[in-house]
Amino acid sequence: MADAGAKKSNIDAGAKKSNTNAKSGGKKKEVKKETGLGLSKKKDENFGEWYSEVVVHSEMIEYYDISGCYILRPWTMSIWETMQAFFDAEIKRMKVKNTYFPLFVSPGVLEKEKDHIEGFAPEVAWVTKSGKSELEVPIAIRPTSETVMYPYFSKWIRGHRDLPLKLNQWCNVVRWEFSNPTPFIRSREFLWQEGHTAFATQAEADEEVLEILELYRRIYEEYLAIPVVKGKKSELEKFAGGLYTTSVEAFIPNTGRGVQGATSHCLGQNFAKMFGIEFENEKGGKAMVWQNSWAYSTRTIGVMVMVHGDDKGLVLPPKVAATQVIVVPVPYKDTNTKEMFEACLRTVDTLTEAGFRVEADLRDNYGPGWKYSHWEMKGVPLRIEIGPRDLEKKQVRLARRDNSDKLDIPVSNLVEQVKDILDRIQENLFDVAKQKRDASIRVAKTWDEFMEALNQKKMILAPWCDEMEVEEEVKKRTKGEIGAAKSLCTPFEQPELPEGTLCFASGKPAKKWTYWGRSY
Amino acid sequence: MADAGAKKSNIDAGAKKSNTNAKSGGKKKEVKKETGLGLSKKKDENFGEWYSEVVVHSEMIEYYDISGCYILRPWTMSIWETMQAFFDAEIKRMKVKNTYFPLFVSPGVLEKEKDHIEGFAPEVAWVTKSGKSELEVPIAIRPTSETVMYPYFSKWIRGHRDLPLKLNQWCNVVRWEFSNPTPFIRSREFLWQEGHTAFATQAEADEEVLEILELYRRIYEEYLAIPVVKGKKSELEKFAGGLYTTSVEAFIPNTGRGVQGATSHCLGQNFAKMFGIEFENEKGGKAMVWQNSWAYSTRTIGVMVMVHGDDKGLVLPPKVAATQVIVVPVPYKDTNTKEMFEACLRTVDTLTEAGFRVEADLRDNYGPGWKYSHWEMKGVPLRIEIGPRDLEKKQVRLARRDNSDKLDIPVSNLVEQVKDILDRIQENLFDVAKQKRDASIRVAKTWDEFMEALNQKKMILAPWCDEMEVEEEVKKRTKGEIGAAKSLCTPFEQPELPEGTLCFASGKPAKKWTYWGRSY
Repeated sequence: MADAGAKKSNIDAGAKKSNTNAKSGGKKKEVKKETGLGLSKKKDENFGEWYSEVVVHSEMIEYYDISGCYILRPWTMSIWETMQAFFDAEIKRMKVKNTYFPLFVSPGVLEKEKDHIEGFAPEVAWVTKSGKSELEVPIAIRPTSETVMYPYFSKWIRGHRDLPLKLNQWCNVVRWEFSNPTPFIRSREFLWQEGHTAFATQAEADEEVLEILELYRRIYEEYLAIPVVKGKKSELEKFAGGLYTTSVEAFIPNTGRGVQGATSHCLGQNFAKMFGIEFENEKGGKAMVWQNSWAYSTRTIGVMVMVHGDDKGLVLPPKVAATQVIVVPVPYKDTNTKEMFEACLRTVDTLTEAGFRVEADLRDNYGPGWKYSHWEMKGVPLRIEIGPRDLEKKQVRLARRDNSDKLDIPVSNLVEQVKDILDRIQENLFDVAKQKRDASIRVAKTWDEFMEALNQKKMILAPWCDEMEVEEEVKKRTKGEIGAAKSLCTPFEQPELPEGTLCFASGKPAKKWTYWGRSY
Repeated sequence: MADAGAKKSNIDAGAKKSNTNAKSGGKKKEVKKETGLGLSKKKDENFGEWYSEVVVHSEMIEYYDISGCYILRPWTMSIWETMQAFFDAEIKRMKVKNTYFPLFVSPGVLEKEKDHIEGFAPEVAWVTKSGKSELEVPIAIRPTSETVMYPYFSKWIRGHRDLPLKLNQWCNVVRWEFSNPTPFIRSREFLWQEGHTAFATQAEADEEVLEILELYRRIYEEYLAIPVVKGKKSELEKFAGGLYTTSVEAFIPNTGRGVQGATSHCLGQNFAKMFGIEFENEKGGKAMVWQNSWAYSTRTIGVMVMVHGDDKGLVLPPKVAATQVIVVPVPYKDTNTKEMFEACLRTVDTLTEAGFRVEADLRDNYGPGWKYSHWEMKGVPLRIEIGPRDLEKKQVRLARRDNSDKLDIPVSNLVEQVKDILDRIQENLFDVAKQKRDASIRVAKTWDEFMEALNQKKMILAPWCDEMEVEEEVKKRTKGEIGAAKSLCTPFEQPELPEGTLCFASGKPAKKWTYWGRSY
């Protein structure tokens, strides 16, 4: 009303833009395009559209009729659940307890921490009506839960015995962003976990920040087979209202963009001050708690698609694949398929009993070629083909999704071989990704080197004076069509910084090596 | 704007009303009241306030500064997760796959099914702003996801091979109700699972409705130790837009109210028609799918509190208790506590290894008496006391939460005895609840008998003509201060209905026995 000029179209925009078969309902003729047939775009030629096609054709995502919102299909959710099972067990071991706080925040509470709300205000979605009635006070939907939770921390924490308090929740959050919605990577609603902890001392908080960051590294490197850099964010890029932010940073060579993979923040005592979270210490004095918050989201899955996917579709690391092995019968004309189908089912049984996630595709309305393409599109790590000759020779043929290698193995050795090859696929995906990531890193000591590397879509390691004004200046000077460069992180593993090294941007003495680049 | 008279206060109302120590922040002096000390209200005397106190003092719930929203604390979440682990595994065995659809619905889709939207419209919360900008089109928050999902069912289902389609999601939903918000039982946001399935034939849909209903019965009876009646809802009470609704119904003797425990709906082909969910059958003809939807929510936990709780606080069934056994040292003056604490920790280790969830309370700032009350308030099923005499005699003392029985057992026999007693507690909770529930049932064949039983807060089994107008009339005639009576369900287990039996309300020939009563 007050601001009619700022009205933004929110329905259908995303679906229209997506340029995939994402219209809801009706169009029955498009069916064959959805899966099994190739992608119309190549990863190296048109990355953006390639990505949209992969996530839809692999049946991970369906575009939704509200822009920036996406349907997470079972193929996605099972990856999410695998990571969740790992992370949830690990934090329970650390005595973190799960909780669930409301989706809604009252404006007074939301706005209590000034820097924090400044960071989030433009993206907050507001509920103003129920049924046909106006609410007396509009209510915000959580973009994150610091201000939702901390009034209650101040109620629950009284003495040193109430510390540490370690809570986590698995939930949805909403950030009504308008810049380039992208499935998984930038969506208006997403799933995440958010941990919120309070300690008596900074030392304990500092220690937990790194413990959690290590779990995030493991999610990326051990589960998703994606190399990440652990490091600290700059003052400009840290969490709004926090003391310092650590993150794991991934890189997408095709677009030359960094991706903040997950963050573990030390909030210091700033929120404690705002929300009055004090405790009586052992000596009977009053003290303020030290707080952390940390989160990873469904963004992880988007990074996985971007890093491993290829022109045939998705490529899933075995550790997170809903289906690790797909068994496909390969009948010739006039073959007796009964025996072959039985061999397929036996193979499924043997591997299932051995603990693998395996299925057979025995559909009679598709040929083997179509099935190969279909399961390649969906990224299943290993295919087992069984044809008449295999039956005869008591063997099966294995075909790897990651490098297309084929191998005939005796049925008697099935379990060992499959285990070995799945391990090798997991390893190879990581190695290849690391090789590509490493090949994307450039060291730049001067502004010219920096700009050259940036234009070559590199992840740039540069000596920096660590001044906020300088980073702001870098952003301004690099603001072009494909987005400004910013600092990604200061890696914990620092190369040597010889005395007298100067900042690439300001020419002042450098204090550290920092990664720079464009980012998602 | 248009309807300023209908403005409703939404901030703080619930917290003020709750009459518990629910104010956020600041009031440090109230700490001791929060746990460990007794309840100020008795279950039989002031059930409503007793309930509010129990859920807060046991640390299950914290009242929130937005009315009708509640914080689910770890003590609650671990119960939720136990039920979730059971149900999720069972439906995965039925080949149901997890998915996640957006929180937001566009108005056009929401309003597509007329009966359905009429049922939910008054409770829908609307987002109309993001940041400082008005949205062009207001967006609804899902009260349930039929209309969110089914446009995509129509896209994904083409041929008979795409059926059955079985999806489920674990998520939050919002129903902005204004009548008596009650933690767990009636809240504006709650957690649930919602299953949505589509079949080629009604027979398959019918079968699944009952399979799921059986899982709901097991959640109540096997996990929460609460007897329920399986049955069918009346036309008036069925799911808006569906074909028929089945449910498990619990009963709260103290308030004389039924509680719909969980529902499994057959939607028939009604939504399929509205959303165009058709498929090509084996003969190449077009057919419409048959659909189900089914859900249980955090309401389950509220029913558990109401049924088992007592004047000392919560009573948890061992199968869902976060902590099944609490070990408390009972030192006398001048005792060497070191040996005793070691015995406590050994007990914890032994029982943990045997698979129990057990903790020791070794805090030195509370005495045994305080600890007994504290863990009784939190409902831990079994307490183990270890004092100097127990050490001497190589025994421990067991104290049951459900019936206060005490028993000394030799340490050598610990695991077997604890297992046996936890099993017996689980059984006893169910038996006692069933006895009370059964004692609340009255058969009423006439209107006078019906009204007498209703005034005695009974759950009434009455012969009924099964006419919608008659149920509407019953509602009108019973509308009093404590709420109108309605049909709860027509139980699948029907007593004999002799020919010539007349409807208690209309005097017409009765068609079935139906449960009636006031309800939550």
